[in-house]
This record gives sequence, structure tokens and C-alpha cells, in this order.
Amino acid sequence: MEDPFAEPADTREAILGAAFRALCEHGYADLTIKRIGEEFDKSPSLVYHHYDGKDELLVDLLEFLLDRFESGLSADAFDLPPRTRLDAYVSAMTDPTDVDAEHAPDGRFLRAVVELRAQAATDEAYRDHFDRSDQVFQRFLEASVREAAAARSDDSTDSRDGRGPVTPSEVAATLQALSTGAMVRWATTNDRTWVEDVRSGIDRYLSMTLPDVDPDA
Amino acid sequence: MEDPFAEPADTREAILGAAFRALCEHGYADLTIKRIGEEFDKSPSLVYHHYDGKDELLVDLLEFLLDRFESGLSADAFDLPPRTRLDAYVSAMTDPTDVDAEHAPDGRFLRAVVELRAQAATDEAYRDHFDRSDQVFQRFLEASVREAAAARSDDSTDSRDGRGPVTPSEVAATLQALSTGAMVRWATTNDRTWVEDVRSGIDRYLSMTLPDVDPDA
Repeated sequence: MEDPFAEPADTREAILGAAFRALCEHGYADLTIKRIGEEFDKSPSLVYHHYDGKDELLVDLLEFLLDRFESGLSADAFDLPPRTRLDAYVSAMTDPTDVDAEHAPDGRFLRAVVELRAQAATDEAYRDHFDRSDQVFQRFLEASVREAAAARSDDSTDSRDGRGPVTPSEVAATLQALSTGAMVRWATTNDRTWVEDVRSGIDRYLSMTLPDVDPDA
Repeated sequence: MEDPFAEPADTREAILGAAFRALCEHGYADLTIKRIGEEFDKSPSLVYHHYDGKDELLVDLLEFLLDRFESGLSADAFDLPPRTRLDAYVSAMTDPTDVDAEHAPDGRFLRAVVELRAQAATDEAYRDHFDRSDQVFQRFLEASVREAAAARSDDSTDSRDGRGPVTPSEVAATLQALSTGAMVRWATTNDRTWVEDVRSGIDRYLSMTLPDVDPDA
């Protein structure tokens, strides 16, 4: 992932950048506003001026990153062919060190995201964020599945073998469960022997399902 | 889920029962040894005598529940036909209120498990537990997939359409990613519109893949 805070546009972005670095460094549990202040190159008191506590700041960080992902979508991601785009998403979620290489080579940021996601089990503000976040990814995946299916039905001689059509929404939700599960397992265990199996499982799922997807459903 | 602490066999089980109740009541973040002591019907000081802190106690609780799941496996689960067993596992993970009904009707226990799993992002003791836990579930799922595939190849006229054989290990790891992802999404969002899609996605995945599984691989 490219450093989203390389050139902060304003004080908010500078604070969020400091929070991002401190989160990668300390993880959620050991993070304090004081430690975020230490990563900040202006007066740490500015952090207290903008946010009431670390959770308010971290939810704002998540929202900022999600907005950035959403606006990046229209710009970049849709340049790739749809199946390649889906494969890239799967790779990013099943081997986070790949994507996270520049900023947190050992996947510390994605480990922190798993910690933040767990806050949503009891905290409404995090919960609202992850509701929105899952909906953004659902739309992205659904559009890609729809496009992949349309590309196939244009040029293919695949038959559907009499199986009923599959909705893009089902494939997108299933892919999202798969990748959330892989990311959580990756972040919370030492074992890596399952990664290859999950990657080929997802690949097989897509190859078997895409021919049956009705792009207009 | 049947109350695993209805009849504690010894002090350890009585303490673990108190921790289980307090965890459902308060969630991980607001849990203290003091609150666990309040759920305990003997002297709260016994809790301090047995455990150094809440995390040591909670890891012991997770280990106890996993051991209990493992010994229950040989006793009960394998009575069900293998595909029914896989479907029951999927149901339990995609609609936790179903299983959790007696003890925590709103799924509070499973929400707490997601919080505990996130501790493993930074805490080795939790990490070791979830490594072992995922391996236990992998063995359970793999044995069930193998059996389902053997039952099919005994009596079926399915052809494999020239697709390569699938290993039981791949299907088990993929199912586990799917169900971990569904459980985490369930525990950390308000939205429930995706549940139907994920259930039919998993069902379709199993129906499409099982005929290709090589039970001896």
C-alpha cells in the first residue's frame, strides 16, 4: 500500500498520519493519545484539541482510509480486467505482507485493523464504520463480478449445465466472507500452511461460479 | 450451545464458569478479575489465587472450551451424516444466535470470542490458542469432507468433467475461512442482509466441490 500520509493536506491528515504510524508501531491495546502525539511533528496538544479520545481518532482514521479507497476505485482499480481485479483483491487479503510491504512489512497495519474491527463488537461508532466499509467492498466486488460475468457471456461457449443462475451479490458476499476470514486468521495465528489451500479454494470457487453468474441479476 | 458450566467438576471449572458469565455480561474490554469474582459463588480471592490476570484466565477458558469441543466430537458430531454435519457447522457460524440461544440469546458469547481472537494479533498466548483451535476445526472439517466425498463416490454417477481432483484439506481450509469471516462480520456489524447470500454461497460451494473431492488425497 502506498503511504496515504506522505503529503498531509491539512492538520487533520497530519494527525491521522501520526495515528497510523503509532498504530503500526504499538498496536491498538498499547496505543495512547500521548503516543500518537509523539509521532506528530507539531505540538501534541493539537491532537487533544481535535479529538476527545483515541477511539474517536481511530474511527476518523478508518473513515479517511475508506474514503480514499472509494475515490481510488474510480481512478485506478477499474483499469484492470475484472477477473484480474478480483484476483488482486484476494491476494491482498490472503497475503497482506504483499500489499502492506512499504509501510508495515510484517503486516502490522492489517493486524491493527483486525484489532479495530473487534472493537466493533461492543462500540457503536466502530460498528457503523464497518457496516459502511463492508458495503463499500460489497459494491466494488459486485461490480467486478458482474463485469467478469458479462465479459464471459459475450464470448463464451460455456453452458450452465442446467444449474440455476447465481447473483453477483451472492458471489460478492461469499468472497468478502472468505477474505475477511483469511485476513483474521492471518493476523491472529502463526501457522501459514493453510494459505495455499485457501487461495486455491477461492480461485476454484470463482472459476466454478463465474460461468453461472447472471450479470443482469 | 449447552451450558458447559452447569455442573462444575472442581474449582477451576467453577472459576471458568464465572469468567464465561462475566465475559457474556461485560465483553472483553470491560472485563476485570473483580467482575469475574462477582459471578463466582465462593470467595473472589480464590480467583486471584488461581490466575495472575484476566488474560491468563481467559486463555484457560478458551482451552477448556476447545478441549470440550474436541472430546464432544468423538461422542456426538459424528452421528450425523457428513454433509448434514458440514451444514450444521456452517449454520452455527453464520447465525450464531441459533447455537448460542440458551446461554447468550443475542450472541454475546460469540461477539466476545471475536474480541478474544483479536487479542491474538499482539499476544502470543492467545495466538498459540487460536493456532491450535484452527487446527482442531481443520481436522474436524477435513474428516467430514473426506467422509462426504467417500459416501458420494460409493453411490454416484457424478462425473468429474475432467476437472482435477480437489483435496479435502483445501475444502476444509476454505470452509474455515468462510465461517470465520461470516462470524466476524456478524459480530462486528448491524447489517444482516448479507447472511442469506453467504449461506447460499457456502452451500453452492460445497455442492459444486464435493463431487470433485478425492477422499484419499
